[in-house]
Amino acid sequence: MALRARALYDFVSENPGEISVVENEMLTLYSEDVVDGWLEGTNSRGESGLFPASYVEILSSEEGFSLQGNGTAGNVYSPRTGSDHVCQVRGDTSSESTPQSHGYPTSQGSDDDWDDDWDDNPTTTTATTSHDPRVHQHKHQPSRANSVSSRGSAGHQARSSATVGKNLNRFSTFVKSGGEAFVLGEASGLVRDCDQICVVMSQFGPEWQENPHPFTCTIDDPTKQTKFKGMKSYMSYGLLPSHTQNPVNRRYKHFDWLYARLVERFPVISVPHLPEKQATGRFEEDFICKRRKGLIWWMNHMTSHPVLSRCDVFQHFLTCSSSDEKTWKQGKRKAEKDHLVGANFFLTIVPPTAPLDLQEVESKVDGFKTFTKKMDENIVQVNVTIGEFSRKQMTGFKKEYQKVGQAFRLLGQAFELDQQAYSVDLNQAMAFTGATYETIGDYFAEQPRQDLEPVSDLLAIYQGHLANFPDIIHVQKGALTKAKESQKDKDMQATHDIHERCNIISCATLAEIQHFHRTRVRDFKAQMQHYLLQQISFFQRITAKLEEALHMYDQA
Amino acid sequence: MALRARALYDFVSENPGEISVVENEMLTLYSEDVVDGWLEGTNSRGESGLFPASYVEILSSEEGFSLQGNGTAGNVYSPRTGSDHVCQVRGDTSSESTPQSHGYPTSQGSDDDWDDDWDDNPTTTTATTSHDPRVHQHKHQPSRANSVSSRGSAGHQARSSATVGKNLNRFSTFVKSGGEAFVLGEASGLVRDCDQICVVMSQFGPEWQENPHPFTCTIDDPTKQTKFKGMKSYMSYGLLPSHTQNPVNRRYKHFDWLYARLVERFPVISVPHLPEKQATGRFEEDFICKRRKGLIWWMNHMTSHPVLSRCDVFQHFLTCSSSDEKTWKQGKRKAEKDHLVGANFFLTIVPPTAPLDLQEVESKVDGFKTFTKKMDENIVQVNVTIGEFSRKQMTGFKKEYQKVGQAFRLLGQAFELDQQAYSVDLNQAMAFTGATYETIGDYFAEQPRQDLEPVSDLLAIYQGHLANFPDIIHVQKGALTKAKESQKDKDMQATHDIHERCNIISCATLAEIQHFHRTRVRDFKAQMQHYLLQQISFFQRITAKLEEALHMYDQA
Repeated sequence: MALRARALYDFVSENPGEISVVENEMLTLYSEDVVDGWLEGTNSRGESGLFPASYVEILSSEEGFSLQGNGTAGNVYSPRTGSDHVCQVRGDTSSESTPQSHGYPTSQGSDDDWDDDWDDNPTTTTATTSHDPRVHQHKHQPSRANSVSSRGSAGHQARSSATVGKNLNRFSTFVKSGGEAFVLGEASGLVRDCDQICVVMSQFGPEWQENPHPFTCTIDDPTKQTKFKGMKSYMSYGLLPSHTQNPVNRRYKHFDWLYARLVERFPVISVPHLPEKQATGRFEEDFICKRRKGLIWWMNHMTSHPVLSRCDVFQHFLTCSSSDEKTWKQGKRKAEKDHLVGANFFLTIVPPTAPLDLQEVESKVDGFKTFTKKMDENIVQVNVTIGEFSRKQMTGFKKEYQKVGQAFRLLGQAFELDQQAYSVDLNQAMAFTGATYETIGDYFAEQPRQDLEPVSDLLAIYQGHLANFPDIIHVQKGALTKAKESQKDKDMQATHDIHERCNIISCATLAEIQHFHRTRVRDFKAQMQHYLLQQISFFQRITAKLEEALHMYDQA
Repeated sequence: MALRARALYDFVSENPGEISVVENEMLTLYSEDVVDGWLEGTNSRGESGLFPASYVEILSSEEGFSLQGNGTAGNVYSPRTGSDHVCQVRGDTSSESTPQSHGYPTSQGSDDDWDDDWDDNPTTTTATTSHDPRVHQHKHQPSRANSVSSRGSAGHQARSSATVGKNLNRFSTFVKSGGEAFVLGEASGLVRDCDQICVVMSQFGPEWQENPHPFTCTIDDPTKQTKFKGMKSYMSYGLLPSHTQNPVNRRYKHFDWLYARLVERFPVISVPHLPEKQATGRFEEDFICKRRKGLIWWMNHMTSHPVLSRCDVFQHFLTCSSSDEKTWKQGKRKAEKDHLVGANFFLTIVPPTAPLDLQEVESKVDGFKTFTKKMDENIVQVNVTIGEFSRKQMTGFKKEYQKVGQAFRLLGQAFELDQQAYSVDLNQAMAFTGATYETIGDYFAEQPRQDLEPVSDLLAIYQGHLANFPDIIHVQKGALTKAKESQKDKDMQATHDIHERCNIISCATLAEIQHFHRTRVRDFKAQMQHYLLQQISFFQRITAKLEEALHMYDQA
């Protein structure tokens, strides 16, 4: 029996060698082998050629029709398709191998009793496919056709370039991230419309296209949960995404798992670091509070990132019902098998029409490198200062004000030995003043939690970003080097392709840099305002307390 | 030629043995010897007997009339008379001997180039007498007649008491202050109306009769003066008493001289201590400022004391023109020859009609002793705390706030490397916030001068008072012991007299204690209010600065 496939969506051929297919058209395949995301076969009109593997579903020998997948509802903005097994992409190794975190701290299961309650019992749902009709509606966006075509040709010409060699250092971030593979045209895979990530040109340079449906997500105080009849306990965070209004519960290990997926998926996007783990005292109030605040910052950076906020795995994390274990596992497995990770991530990027001036890009990236270095250094110093200042307020300042309070009390106590009528009011006022200064001491001790700690939390998430950028910059630098090397290539097409791919990486890098700056300005403005407002309120409370004390002397 | 005297004022005899005299009446004296303040002679009506020595002036053999003295103007409230040589009082030894400072720190001429420009060239003005007509007007106040009579009798019966012996310890304050001599009836001298110090009974117990003409005196910033063609320089303080509105200039040595006179003059009055001397760096700004503030406090305590404010020597100090050297020296010599010092001081006290319950007095004085001990101890601790707190604010707090300011600046500086249009306002706001915290640091450093230093100055003057009181209490205790001893005396009159004199000392002591408490309540109330107002203003200034900084983010 001939190997057959059914077209899932319309595909219009744009290059020689491709054939067009129409939704539901039955195709005969030459082979099941997917080469750089393409299958070869014949359509119902007798035309033979290449068509995207992800646009069709291969029918098993027994099947006369495809199984309609049981796509889960609730994911509106980043639709998922169950196309795992139709998208077998040659060269996409990382989706099957151990996730590469290329230097990012991922720590799946190290402390957070990463039990296997949702890792075991593989279901057979992976054999079925589900598809989201929205993919169909979007597929003929003009930009998409370009990107698919350029990628196709890139794939075909990868090995034609002789001048631009491979990096010998297989541990280089450029290599590990897939940046090199992509630049050299070795990445290839089918990108659905919904997977496309557009970079647009703004007055400030390339920027990620904004999320048209922005949302936020709150994180509640975690609650302690137990399982195995109370033998094991863990903290569960209540999440409420604004776009679904469906609360879900997630454990830290879920965040951790998500983080690992994102890092693997997006080589030139700065995935916000999760708050630090702490092996002992996991349930101590302070730690829980600190982690929650860290997660809130993390979530804030996730939801405000135009790319991260929309990606499938994050949406799965946010929207999959906590009680629907089956759907959860399905989404989990799908994410872990995602083929658009590493090098293939770059395939998803749709750059602005006009290519960037690579010299200008280099200068901008160098400038940003200097910026991050300086910001990182200064944050270290600021953190030391803030930490020291917090400590001083909580100990030294508090003590000093309390000692002054005790001094006034002492004077008042001596005065109380004189119980003349005209002395009594003064004595009381003195005692009150003493108590006032003791209270002011407490105010000082409590204040850092209100103002310096949030600043410190902010700095922590930015330290994470700053730690991410050297690798991101390294990928862009690597691409730029390849582009420069390719100048010598006699093969003009190869040089052109490498430049084009370098442009894609540069666009993505600059868009990420721009996003970083925008977020930074937003966050630091808000945080400084918050800090100053807290400080003002603090000093006003002190003033009010002192006025109260002063008032006591009116009768004295 | 018979020894003659002229009556300066009317005197009405009230006891057997006394004779009345009328102003300007010529008297024949039996002898020039003054016994316990009394002279013996015959009046123009042929009556023979005793009359107060200070009410007459002895005429030299050559004189047919007294020389009218050149009394200085301007001393309204505490009139001076030039009666030095007509008031030779038996047993009044201290007025001629070296001034006894009984433990008070007097340091006449030790550091303050106590040159003799107004000590040399003794003029002959001491031979002349001057009298103030107001003395005349006041002399028949009812209380005075009592006191003179009782003192007269006390003087006469001094040696009739056998039971109550003298203290063997001649260094005891009780002895040195003249308290013992007074209680034993050995003090005797003539007290003019204007020298009388009335103790009245208030709801709170014995109190000094208020100064009916209260006044204040400002002290200007000292100016540097030179003499000997610039060879010597000294600081001169401009004083402006409110009751004369005549500015006078005084040097520290003048204050010091005055202080010594007052200590000698008033055994149971707590003469405020002068601010500390400083041998080196006399002209350093800080020291000058500190001494001036100390002198202001001192002056404030002087003018608000009902007895000290009215006494001759203080009035002389306040009112004698700085340029009228002759009058100054006259007043100076007179003060140094004052016979109403030490034991005789007690002669000037007019107690309330009803004698005090000595047991109650003892309990009150004991209570006060406990009070002063506690207050003294606590002030020491408060001073340590305040000093430490000042130091902390001037160094640690300032440094902390400046470091925070620098931290914000640092962040701002890193941000400045990103000169995107949307970043510039934030960068400026950050820099401004940094500057704001540096300013707040300065505020902290400057603040103690505004609020803690005045408290410290106040505590210093009270430490002086608290150092005075043990001696004062010792005098009263001594008197009480004598009164107790006298119970065994068979001589009822002697016992009665000792009790009466102990009552006088007790009244004076309690009046001084009461005055201390009233002043203390007044001063500490005012100072605490000042402190709190300064603190409120301080925190308000910080708040305003922070609001300014916050406002910078409106455009960011």
